[in-house]
Amino acid sequence: LTEGQPRLQRQLALLMKQRGIDFKAEEILVTAGSQQAIDLVARAFLNPGDTVAIEAPSYLAAIQVFDLCQFRPLQILSDAHGARVETLPQVGQAMPKLAYLVTNFANPSGATLSLERRVALLKWAAANEVFVLEDDPYGELRYRGAPAPALVTIARDIPGAARWCGYASSLSKIVSPGLRVGWLCLPDAVHDVAARIKQALDLQTSSFVQEIAAEYLESGRLAQRLPVIRATYNEHCDALSDALTGAFGEKLEFNRPDGGMFLWARFAQTPSLDTRKLLELARNRGVIFVPGAAFYPEPLQCNSLRLSFSTATPAELREGAKRLRTAYDELLRLSENRITREPA
Amino acid sequence: LTEGQPRLQRQLALLMKQRGIDFKAEEILVTAGSQQAIDLVARAFLNPGDTVAIEAPSYLAAIQVFDLCQFRPLQILSDAHGARVETLPQVGQAMPKLAYLVTNFANPSGATLSLERRVALLKWAAANEVFVLEDDPYGELRYRGAPAPALVTIARDIPGAARWCGYASSLSKIVSPGLRVGWLCLPDAVHDVAARIKQALDLQTSSFVQEIAAEYLESGRLAQRLPVIRATYNEHCDALSDALTGAFGEKLEFNRPDGGMFLWARFAQTPSLDTRKLLELARNRGVIFVPGAAFYPEPLQCNSLRLSFSTATPAELREGAKRLRTAYDELLRLSENRITREPA
Repeated sequence: LTEGQPRLQRQLALLMKQRGIDFKAEEILVTAGSQQAIDLVARAFLNPGDTVAIEAPSYLAAIQVFDLCQFRPLQILSDAHGARVETLPQVGQAMPKLAYLVTNFANPSGATLSLERRVALLKWAAANEVFVLEDDPYGELRYRGAPAPALVTIARDIPGAARWCGYASSLSKIVSPGLRVGWLCLPDAVHDVAARIKQALDLQTSSFVQEIAAEYLESGRLAQRLPVIRATYNEHCDALSDALTGAFGEKLEFNRPDGGMFLWARFAQTPSLDTRKLLELARNRGVIFVPGAAFYPEPLQCNSLRLSFSTATPAELREGAKRLRTAYDELLRLSENRITREPA
Repeated sequence: LTEGQPRLQRQLALLMKQRGIDFKAEEILVTAGSQQAIDLVARAFLNPGDTVAIEAPSYLAAIQVFDLCQFRPLQILSDAHGARVETLPQVGQAMPKLAYLVTNFANPSGATLSLERRVALLKWAAANEVFVLEDDPYGELRYRGAPAPALVTIARDIPGAARWCGYASSLSKIVSPGLRVGWLCLPDAVHDVAARIKQALDLQTSSFVQEIAAEYLESGRLAQRLPVIRATYNEHCDALSDALTGAFGEKLEFNRPDGGMFLWARFAQTPSLDTRKLLELARNRGVIFVPGAAFYPEPLQCNSLRLSFSTATPAELREGAKRLRTAYDELLRLSENRITREPA
C-alpha cells in the first residue's frame, strides 16, 4: 500500500485530531519523513523554472528539494510573527506555483506565523490559486502560549481555500528521526497525484517501520513523553537566551521562541559581520552554529545565525555563549586590523 | 549519514564481493529500495525531454520513475538473451542520456543479458559516453546455469567503461520487500551527485531499518535461506511452465527462465489477441497476471503477458494454467462472434 499501513494512518489521524486537524485515516499519505513530503508536493506542482514562494530565511533542506526541481525562489521575508505574507504578489502580478512555509517555530527563524497572517495567506492562496504547503514538524514542541490552528483547519472556513492548502508533519522531532516517518494531508486531487508519484519513487515507506511507529503511538507513550521534551527544550531555550543576553547585551538581537529547537539571532549593530567567518573562529573554541546565509536561496543576511539548543545541556549552552562572545571579539579585532592595514 | 549506516554498508560490500563486485563499504549508497536507486540516478542525469534507452518490455515502476522526469523512451527490444544491444544508436546518431536494464531474470521478460551483450553494451557506453544503470534485484534467485558478471565488474577490463556504469540492487527479493532497503554502486562523481540528491529527498534511509538489515546479514541467515528460496521458485517455475505447455501447447510461446520470479509469454499464433481483454475473463475465474502492454512506454506487444510464480503453490499454478486456457477459449469465442456480427 503506497499510501501507508492502515494501522499507522489511524494513529496519525488521531494525532491530527489532537492538533485540531480533521482528516480521515485513509486520507493521510505516509512519507519517508517530511523531507519526502516536500518532494512529493514539489514534484506534483513544479516544472523546471517555476517559482516557489518561501520564507526567508527558510528550511535549508526544503530549498535543496526545490533546487532539484530547478525552482526560482520568491523570498518572503519573515519577522517575529512569521513570513510577512502581505508582501506576496498581488492580483495581476506574476504568481508562484507553490508557497512553502514552516508555520510553527520555523527552522531557522524560530518564529510562528500569526493567526492573522494565516488567514491572509489562505485568502491570497484561494484568490490566486496558489497551493500552500504548511510544514509542521515542531508544532508539538510548544512550551509557551497557545497554538494557532493549522492552515488546513482554518481553510474550512474560507471559501475556496481548502483546495489550495496541505499539511506535512513528521515523527522525527517527537518520536525519532531515525524512523523516517512523515505524512501529508492533502486535498483529494493533490493526494492522488502525490500518491502516484510516491509509488514511482519508492513504492511505499518501509511497512516494517510504519508498524513500529503505529505500535509506539498506540502505546500512548508519546503523550507521556511530550511534556518531558517540552520542559527540557524550554529549559535549554531559556538557558541559551539568558546566556546570550549576558554575553552580548544589545549586540545580538533575537526573539525568544515559544517552542521548537532553534534560536535565530542577528548581530544588529554590525551589519557587515559575516557569521561564516565567525563560525571558523567559534569552531576552534568548540562552538558550532549554522551561519544565516545558508538559509537563503540568495543570501540576504550574512550577520545572522541559527543556534540549536535541543541536545546541549544548559551548562554547555552557557559556556557556549561565552566562547561565542570570545570568538566574536576576536573576529572584530581581526577585521579592525585588516582595515588598518588596507591601503586607503 | 545520508550514504548509509556503516554497519550495513560493510555487510552489503561483503554481499557484493560474493557477486564478484568489488566496491568498498563507504562507496555503497544505501537507498529506499532499488526504486529510489533508479530515481536518484534518473535525477542525477535527466532533464525533461531527455532520452533513456530501456529494454522493451521493461520494468513498469522504472518507466514510472523516468516518466516523472518527463523522459523520452528509446525502446530496445529484448529476446531470450536480454536487450538486443546491437540495436542501440550508432556513432553519429542521437544518443540517450542514460540506459537502464534489468540484467538478470528481468521483470517482466525473465531474460538474462548474455555476456557477449554485456561487453558490447559497455563498449558502446564508453564510446558514446552514455551512463548505463544495471538493476539487479533478482540475480541471487538463480536456480539454473552460471551467472554472468555484473557490468561494473566487466567494465574494469574495458578502457573507459568504469565511469559509465553503475549497479543497483535491493534486499526486497531476498530478505524482505517491507524493509525497503536497496543500494547503489556508482563511479565516484556520480555517487557524490546521487548522495546530494538523496540528502535533499529524504535525508537518509531509516537508520532503524538499516541496523535491522545489517543485523540480519551479519547473522548469516541469508546464506541458509537463499537455497530454500531458489529451490521453491525453481519448483514453482517448472510447475507453471509444464502446466502452460500442457494447457496451451504451441499457442503460447515462452522461455523457461533460469531464475527469478516471472515468466513472460506470448500468444504467438494470435497476434491480435489483447491480453488486457483476456485478463478481464481470467479474473472472473480467479486468475490474474499483468498484460504485456503495461511494460512498454508505448505499447508494442498486446498479445503478451507476465505470469508471476513466486507466491502461488505448484497446485495453484497448475489449476491457474487450466483456468487461463478456459478464459482464452472464451475470449476467442467472443471475438469470433463479434467478427461474425460486424458488418462487412
